[in-house]
Amino acid sequence: MRGVVYKGPYKVDVEQVPDPKIEHPNDVILKITSTCICGSDLHMYEGRTPAQAGLRFGHEPMGVVEEVGNAVTTLRKGDRVVAMCNVACGFCKNCERGLSGYCLTVNPGFAGAAYGFAGWGPFPGGQSDYLRVPYADYNALKVPQGTEHEEDFALLADIFPTGYHGTELAKVSIGESVVVFGAGPVGEMVTYSAMLRGAAEVYVVDHIPERLDKVKKIGAIPIDFSKGDPVEQIKSMRHGDGVDKGIDAVGYQAINPVTGTEDPAYVLNALIGLVNATGILGMIGLYVTNDPGAKDPHAAHGELLISWGKLWEKGLSLGSGQVNVKLYQRHLRDLIIAGRAKPSFVVSHELPLNDAPLAYEKFDKRVDGFTKVILKP
Amino acid sequence: MRGVVYKGPYKVDVEQVPDPKIEHPNDVILKITSTCICGSDLHMYEGRTPAQAGLRFGHEPMGVVEEVGNAVTTLRKGDRVVAMCNVACGFCKNCERGLSGYCLTVNPGFAGAAYGFAGWGPFPGGQSDYLRVPYADYNALKVPQGTEHEEDFALLADIFPTGYHGTELAKVSIGESVVVFGAGPVGEMVTYSAMLRGAAEVYVVDHIPERLDKVKKIGAIPIDFSKGDPVEQIKSMRHGDGVDKGIDAVGYQAINPVTGTEDPAYVLNALIGLVNATGILGMIGLYVTNDPGAKDPHAAHGELLISWGKLWEKGLSLGSGQVNVKLYQRHLRDLIIAGRAKPSFVVSHELPLNDAPLAYEKFDKRVDGFTKVILKP
Amino acid sequence: MRGVVYKGPYKVDVEQVPDPKIEHPNDVILKITSTCICGSDLHMYEGRTPAQAGLRFGHEPMGVVEEVGNAVTTLRKGDRVVAMCNVACGFCKNCERGLSGYCLTVNPGFAGAAYGFAGWGPFPGGQSDYLRVPYADYNALKVPQGTEHEEDFALLADIFPTGYHGTELAKVSIGESVVVFGAGPVGEMVTYSAMLRGAAEVYVVDHIPERLDKVKKIGAIPIDFSKGDPVEQIKSMRHGDGVDKGIDAVGYQAINPVTGTEDPAYVLNALIGLVNATGILGMIGLYVTNDPGAKDPHAAHGELLISWGKLWEKGLSLGSGQVNVKLYQRHLRDLIIAGRAKPSFVVSHELPLNDAPLAYEKFDKRVDGFTKVILKP
Amino acid sequence: MRGVVYKGPYKVDVEQVPDPKIEHPNDVILKITSTCICGSDLHMYEGRTPAQAGLRFGHEPMGVVEEVGNAVTTLRKGDRVVAMCNVACGFCKNCERGLSGYCLTVNPGFAGAAYGFAGWGPFPGGQSDYLRVPYADYNALKVPQGTEHEEDFALLADIFPTGYHGTELAKVSIGESVVVFGAGPVGEMVTYSAMLRGAAEVYVVDHIPERLDKVKKIGAIPIDFSKGDPVEQIKSMRHGDGVDKGIDAVGYQAINPVTGTEDPAYVLNALIGLVNATGILGMIGLYVTNDPGAKDPHAAHGELLISWGKLWEKGLSLGSGQVNVKLYQRHLRDLIIAGRAKPSFVVSHELPLNDAPLAYEKFDKRVDGFTKVILKP
Repeated sequence: MRGVVYKGPYKVDVEQVPDPKIEHPNDVILKITSTCICGSDLHMYEGRTPAQAGLRFGHEPMGVVEEVGNAVTTLRKGDRVVAMCNVACGFCKNCERGLSGYCLTVNPGFAGAAYGFAGWGPFPGGQSDYLRVPYADYNALKVPQGTEHEEDFALLADIFPTGYHGTELAKVSIGESVVVFGAGPVGEMVTYSAMLRGAAEVYVVDHIPERLDKVKKIGAIPIDFSKGDPVEQIKSMRHGDGVDKGIDAVGYQAINPVTGTEDPAYVLNALIGLVNATGILGMIGLYVTNDPGAKDPHAAHGELLISWGKLWEKGLSLGSGQVNVKLYQRHLRDLIIAGRAKPSFVVSHELPLNDAPLAYEKFDKRVDGFTKVILKP
Repeated sequence: MRGVVYKGPYKVDVEQVPDPKIEHPNDVILKITSTCICGSDLHMYEGRTPAQAGLRFGHEPMGVVEEVGNAVTTLRKGDRVVAMCNVACGFCKNCERGLSGYCLTVNPGFAGAAYGFAGWGPFPGGQSDYLRVPYADYNALKVPQGTEHEEDFALLADIFPTGYHGTELAKVSIGESVVVFGAGPVGEMVTYSAMLRGAAEVYVVDHIPERLDKVKKIGAIPIDFSKGDPVEQIKSMRHGDGVDKGIDAVGYQAINPVTGTEDPAYVLNALIGLVNATGILGMIGLYVTNDPGAKDPHAAHGELLISWGKLWEKGLSLGSGQVNVKLYQRHLRDLIIAGRAKPSFVVSHELPLNDAPLAYEKFDKRVDGFTKVILKP
Repeated sequence: MRGVVYKGPYKVDVEQVPDPKIEHPNDVILKITSTCICGSDLHMYEGRTPAQAGLRFGHEPMGVVEEVGNAVTTLRKGDRVVAMCNVACGFCKNCERGLSGYCLTVNPGFAGAAYGFAGWGPFPGGQSDYLRVPYADYNALKVPQGTEHEEDFALLADIFPTGYHGTELAKVSIGESVVVFGAGPVGEMVTYSAMLRGAAEVYVVDHIPERLDKVKKIGAIPIDFSKGDPVEQIKSMRHGDGVDKGIDAVGYQAINPVTGTEDPAYVLNALIGLVNATGILGMIGLYVTNDPGAKDPHAAHGELLISWGKLWEKGLSLGSGQVNVKLYQRHLRDLIIAGRAKPSFVVSHELPLNDAPLAYEKFDKRVDGFTKVILKP
Repeated sequence: MRGVVYKGPYKVDVEQVPDPKIEHPNDVILKITSTCICGSDLHMYEGRTPAQAGLRFGHEPMGVVEEVGNAVTTLRKGDRVVAMCNVACGFCKNCERGLSGYCLTVNPGFAGAAYGFAGWGPFPGGQSDYLRVPYADYNALKVPQGTEHEEDFALLADIFPTGYHGTELAKVSIGESVVVFGAGPVGEMVTYSAMLRGAAEVYVVDHIPERLDKVKKIGAIPIDFSKGDPVEQIKSMRHGDGVDKGIDAVGYQAINPVTGTEDPAYVLNALIGLVNATGILGMIGLYVTNDPGAKDPHAAHGELLISWGKLWEKGLSLGSGQVNVKLYQRHLRDLIIAGRAKPSFVVSHELPLNDAPLAYEKFDKRVDGFTKVILKP
């Protein structure tokens, strides 16, 4: 079968790779129908992680059950399902609480696993024709048969739950003011989730006009950082006040809009400056412990200079880390089925799997409107 | 000044009553600009509570600060504010947690106080020209100067927070299915709040077409109980499944749609039957311990026959009681200011204070579209 | 092998029953080393449930893994484990949140399953030499090899988590006053758990001197209901005040101490009277929908007359239902291992499996100090 | 009257200062009976904050009401009360949620106020004969008349709630493993609180033998960092595993036990290394934005180099900041009254107010067993 393979910085190929097989009685094999490219794939693509050539990419797959291990209880051949970017056992100390992003079983010695991600276990990526899903009763969620909502459901593997996770970490609640840094697809999902939860005002910081337009359309307040320090812009709009909550949808490859240079702690420090005392930060943008492309030796090991005294003085709280898809996936699915959420507004392109090299290149360059691509095997 | 005075079952008058005065340094006097009639006023109006003739009605007031006690910190003459239906001290064991509906200070020997309500303390009602607000820094919330959003802000005294309280007691969360019994103004506010919090499906049970139309317009699924047992209707629509959460916006004067007679435990028992195992009930409809009009001696003392074995078998949880306005008022206000909520869609009439007798009569009979009336002194 | 078999009211036998076998790749077979008799077994024993003759009893088993299905990941022959009274899949809508008491998979058409319990699925009881444990990675928790803490660990299958569940439903927190109705083994575990969570004062209501002594020894305040209305006793001790939280460890076979007769709603109504406004009730005592021995036709169907008006006036909340063992078992195990909890103080007898008939009889009569029996196959 | 006055680094005097007066109708004047020296006073004493000479110290006062403003509702002359270290209004956006450490009213332009603390408002310290307490119904909590538990109650102003706050920020729950950095009086209160909440294992890191002995006596596991890297010591004791939760009771003047030099980010980074994925950190040790004695220019502004990539990879959460006394004070008081907590085991000395200079000197040098001093005016 075909799979998307990392060949080194700024290069991926679609290659013939081995067909997956049932390796354990709780596995299923999925025939992939939709599989997205994630912003976190770009960190690997750009050589900013320890990913080695040969790694197969893709952690946002959905499809149809093709083959079923003999211990699987709830799935049958032909069932339409969406997977999680997390790979998880369902019964360890973390999974039993729904913390599927930090499974202690499937990637021994580390908390957490994913398909196709450097350091996150031995699971080949799902940008391919087929995919093995372990512990399938836990790792695959049924969606209604047919083809309806295909684009929306595909976003349930990662990006919609990830956006929602940001609002959950920040405990966004009714009537609050929120700032979101980053209006890429994840930032848009954060923004959309904050609206769904009843935030009063959501300020979204970016500099790409199309992105700012998109968040404006869903009711948020766009802040163009190319027009000045976004912290000052927002405080000024609020007559000096900050905001209740803040969410980072950028991560370590942030550009400081004041200096114009890469500054991995920029978003965190901006949030510390902008969020009011007693506020909460949701840090879902990726940070790493090993960045081969870092500008300084501390950042290369994930050590950042943080306005910690100010954070403490304000009594801020924060949550961090990758999404626990299990906590949200079922409810977000039901929102889509009920017609109350349509996250696919973030999707800019659907392309054949074979166009993956082109899609990576254009998404990475943010050209031709590439913001979120679904590959169709 | 003028005030609305209860004269006995089905009779209120607008009479001359004493002007309020600053009685304590933390008081303010409000000049009332808007003051609503509440469904709970109708329980008193109908003689279904211990309320005595002479009681002054009204617990949903807003207005402008007219006079300020010398210990008040944050309010000045001319400030536009909305009060709470709760009267509360701000510093007792309950108030310090925001549980303003159960203040232990202002109504000694009882937990909770309200303006103009039988058994809830010595505070005259606010359907009048002026009102004394005790502990004003805690009991009056500023809204922007001017007249904008007047109808929306007026609903912040009780009904919007009360509706929201129902969803909070039931912990309504993203993607959930919810049933609301009652599509009167409170039921509409519950429904609106459930949508604001991101529920997937909200079934609303009533039999008045205008009400069912109204909830349909805000995205809910109307269930007309005159067309059959609503529990069966909803289960049938859901292929046998129940719902995640249930909210009672009716209370003890419920009509059992199957028998057509008053059945004070009907809504609770219907919720026990309809909500799925592990679900949560939010009981905001009023129940009383003394009902002079009850059909049986147990109900006269608030003792109801409840399907408790079924509730336990399903592992249901529930929260009950009147709203703690303080917990929600500020955030709901900000939602209105931001243009993200417009609860005044429930308001059917604005009338001069002098029309109170007419308004009570028509609202009580549910005629001429009377659902929510704002009196304008 | 041998198993304890229900023969009809007040009669159990130890009989030869079929050996369990691996029926599904995720099963294990346990060789039972300790298996407790539960107060809820007595409801069946007394003919107060729909249990039919032939039912095999026992839902509190622990033992050593004897045989392992080929899909099981974490268990090996020889591992020492404790099961849960719940039988659960680990991946349904309820299990994924840890609500193992309400599994939707293993007992189709009903939420929840248990070993050896009428209406709770097809799982034979564990008062036997061996037991089949389904979905074993989820349903069996490892404890350290050897024999240490055997009595304590045996209580992790049900009674210690159940007691803890009562305090969790009531959200017992630091410095609170709590009342517990019932000082049987479950009531003792509730009391013990409330102390472990930092309650200030725990009042425990019973009338059996040995039980009252036992709770006094762990720091609680015993209330002997044979000396007068316990609600009045406690209010009097507290100068008229009630308590913050209340827990029912009695259930539907309660005796009203004022009238001396069985009154299935007694404990609930007493809690409504005694717990302060804004308080929370944890209802873990068993209530049923079908009681062949009920004194009135309503109670026979689980319909009870409840002081609902008072509950509402006080704004009380409550949680109900059987324990979700998964939520607590791991942490309570760690407390035992660390030497910080020793719940086995409730165990009154350890007897050979063959003595089950004697044990049931004496425990049911509450004679000879029988309060909690562990059977040793 | 007399008051303790800061004269510059390492120097305080007891001087004649103006008597406090009722300045607002909600004030009371306390006659101080006990007033503690806090570890945070030492930061000022050592010149490591912007405190200026002339500042009056003391934020842990208790006493007897001497004079009552005419708007005060619940206090009378002669009432015995304990204050909070926080000064707070009771009705602002933060106070209404119990977040008394971040009052927006009493120290305009800043969130939070305290008695006698640089930057935290205009409130003179309470190491003096008398003290003015603003908004006294909110800021003073009654304790039983007499002299019983005087030492315990005095600790309710700050240190016992602060220790408890650490466990609340880290959400310490039953059966968990916890590490506490620092076994000074606050660390001891954290440890004590973690035990009260039911932690299974509490590792406490310090190097002073008396302190390590003290925490061992209350059931914790002492870790002497002079014997090697405490992170490695604990992981080794746990067979390579980390802990569930971590609490910092040291702050910015930490000594790195590996290098032996001051390292303001040491404790935070050690916690990031030691706490398991999905764990939570409670950061109650003080961090500042202006440290005149910092070793590097970043630290002088509160900017610290933090292992942020590792924190994110582990999905850690954290809470920070000074205590909200209001959230805990009442319940901790009730625990003392019930005899279930006796925090005064941390008190090493009771001395006359006039001995304050000696007490500061010895406490600062950690000599002669000085760990927690109560001054008696």
